[in-house]
Amino acid sequence: MVVAIEWVRNPRPHIRLIDQTVLPGAVQYLEITTVTDLVAAIQSLAVRGAPALGAAGALGVVVAMNQGEQEGWDEAELQRNVDLVRDARPTAVNLAWGVNEVRHAIPEGADRVLELAQRVVDEDGAANRELSRLGADWILDATGREQVRVVTHCNTGALATTAWGTAYGIIHELHERGRLGLVYADETRPLLQGSRLTSWELTQDGIDHVIQADGAAASTILRGLVDVAIIGADRITANGDTANKVGSVTLALACERAGIPFVVAAPYSTVDAGTATGEDIHIEERAALEVLELGGVRTAPATARAFNPAFDVTPHDLISAIVTEQGVVVPARSGGGALFADLVNQ
Amino acid sequence: MVVAIEWVRNPRPHIRLIDQTVLPGAVQYLEITTVTDLVAAIQSLAVRGAPALGAAGALGVVVAMNQGEQEGWDEAELQRNVDLVRDARPTAVNLAWGVNEVRHAIPEGADRVLELAQRVVDEDGAANRELSRLGADWILDATGREQVRVVTHCNTGALATTAWGTAYGIIHELHERGRLGLVYADETRPLLQGSRLTSWELTQDGIDHVIQADGAAASTILRGLVDVAIIGADRITANGDTANKVGSVTLALACERAGIPFVVAAPYSTVDAGTATGEDIHIEERAALEVLELGGVRTAPATARAFNPAFDVTPHDLISAIVTEQGVVVPARSGGGALFADLVNQ
Repeated sequence: MVVAIEWVRNPRPHIRLIDQTVLPGAVQYLEITTVTDLVAAIQSLAVRGAPALGAAGALGVVVAMNQGEQEGWDEAELQRNVDLVRDARPTAVNLAWGVNEVRHAIPEGADRVLELAQRVVDEDGAANRELSRLGADWILDATGREQVRVVTHCNTGALATTAWGTAYGIIHELHERGRLGLVYADETRPLLQGSRLTSWELTQDGIDHVIQADGAAASTILRGLVDVAIIGADRITANGDTANKVGSVTLALACERAGIPFVVAAPYSTVDAGTATGEDIHIEERAALEVLELGGVRTAPATARAFNPAFDVTPHDLISAIVTEQGVVVPARSGGGALFADLVNQ
Repeated sequence: MVVAIEWVRNPRPHIRLIDQTVLPGAVQYLEITTVTDLVAAIQSLAVRGAPALGAAGALGVVVAMNQGEQEGWDEAELQRNVDLVRDARPTAVNLAWGVNEVRHAIPEGADRVLELAQRVVDEDGAANRELSRLGADWILDATGREQVRVVTHCNTGALATTAWGTAYGIIHELHERGRLGLVYADETRPLLQGSRLTSWELTQDGIDHVIQADGAAASTILRGLVDVAIIGADRITANGDTANKVGSVTLALACERAGIPFVVAAPYSTVDAGTATGEDIHIEERAALEVLELGGVRTAPATARAFNPAFDVTPHDLISAIVTEQGVVVPARSGGGALFADLVNQ
C-alpha cells in the first residue's frame, strides 16, 4: 500500500514523505528534520492533500520540538516555528487543525506530542475507510446504477491522505464491490495532480480509467458519460460551501445541469464550523510560473502575467452530498442552515 | 498586422501560413504546395481557427489544382484530393464551407478558383470588423459598464481568422474604444492556444491581460471578476447550439449562474443551418498524447489512456447572444426556433 507520509524513528527521527512533485516518473522520498524543509515540502506540494497536510501539521510540531532541542530554541522561538508550519498554506484548514491537535501538549514533551500526532495519522486512515463505505452506499442508492461511472478532480487518494483516500477512497470502495464503471480523471492543471498522481494510484489499484483535460469535464458530464462526480475538500464551511482544487466548481455546475449527483468527500476535520460561508474563505494564489511554464519551459510570451488561484468554492446548493466518517449530509436540501450541528448530535 | 494565412504567387504559387505550433517561442512560416502538406498543417493545428480554416479550404482547392496539373491527375484524382482537404477536420464546418465556396468553379480553371478563394479571405476580414463593432455595441449595452472585464477561451484572433479576429475582434474593438478592462485568457489545454497564441496577440496589441488555467475560469466568473465571456464558434446549428473548443461550455454554465452575458462571435459562414441541434454534431476526438505528454515529456503513467474531445457543445439556452456580421441573435430568448431565418430575412 502507498504510504505518502509517516514518522520514522531510526537512524534519526524524521518525517518520511513521497516527493509527489516527481511522480509518476520516479518514486523518491524526502527525509524531513527541519521546519524549513517541511514548509518547503508543503509549499512545493511535495506533500499535499487536506488529510496528509493534517498529518504533516501534527508531525511537524514534533519536528519543530526536535529541532528546537538541538538548536537551543527558547519557548518563543519554538512557538514561532510551529506557527510557520501552521501557516505554510493558508487555505488548507487541515494543516492548522493538525498543528492545533497536538501543540497544546508541547509542555508534556516530544514523546507525548508524537503519540498524539500518530493518533491523527491513524484516525485519518480509519475515517477514510468509514467515509468510503458511507459514500459508496449513498452513491449506489442515489444513482441506482449497477456500474457507476465516475468523474473526479485532482488527487484524493492515499497520496493525499495518510491511507486509502477520501473521494478516491469511495472510488476504490466501489471498485472492491465490483460496482465501478469507467473513471474519468481530470488532469488538474496547473500541477497535473490528476494525470501524475490519481492516474498513478488508479494504475496501482488496477482501476480502468481515462485522463481528460480539465476543460473536457463539463462536456463529459453533459454528454451523459458519467453518473456521479466525486471530489475532496480542503475546507468545508458551516453552511456546506466547499473549497477544493480550482476547477471543482466546474463539475458541480455541470452536474446540476445534467441532473446527476455531485459528491464531496472529506474527513470531518475538514469542516470549519468557525467559518460561516465560502465568501469568508481566503483563496490562496500560487506562483504565476506554474501556469506560464511547463516542465521548466516557457509556454507563454515572455512578458505575460498569470492569475493562479489554487482553490475555488462550490456553493452548498450545488452539492448533492457531503460525506464524512460521521455521516452524509445533503446541503442542497438544507438551505445551508445548521448543516453539521445535526450530524454531530447524531 | 498579423497575417496567419495568405496566397503568395512568387517564386512559385503557395499558401503561406504562420506555423502556430511553434508560437510564441518562434515565428516561422510554412510554404504549402501539396494537398498532403496542407492536410498535415490542418491536422497538426499549424493552421487553426474556424475562419482561417475556411480560407485554407478555399485556397486548398487551388493547391490541389496546381498539384494535379503538375502531376497529371485525372478529374477523379483531383476531386478525391479536394475531398481530402475538405475532410481534414470533421467538426470544423468552415473548412468544408471554404472548399465548397470555390470547387464548383474548378471547370473554369485555377485563376477563377483563386479569385473566388481570395474573395473568401477578403470577406472574412470585412465580416470580422463588422461583427466586432456589433458585438462591442451589444456588450456595452448589456453590461452597462464603463470598462468591460472579459474572459475568453482558446484563440479567436488574427491567427484564427484571416484578419482581426472574431471573439478576439470584439475584445480588440472594446480596447480601441477605450472601454476594455482586464482580460482573462484561458490557457486552453491541451494545446495551450490561449497562453501561446491569444496572449501573444494580446501582447502585440498592447492589451492588459492575465492567463489562467482552464479550471480557474468558472470561479473567476462566479467571483465577479469579469463582466462578460466571449468565445468563438466552430459550428453553430440551426437552433443556436454552438460547438467550440472543449472547455467553452464551462464558461457558459458559470455565466448563467453569475447572471452575466455569455457571447458567441463568429462569421455567418459558421452557421450550419443543415444541422438541427448540437446533438447532431460529431465531436472530433484528438490524439491521446496531447493530454498524456507535455512538450514531448510523458506526464502520465506509461500505461494511462486519455479521453481527448476537441470540442464541446454549448446549448442555445445558455447563450446570451450570437454575434455575426449579419447581426445579433439572442438564442436564450428564442426557444431555439428559426433563430437565423429572421436574421437572413432582415
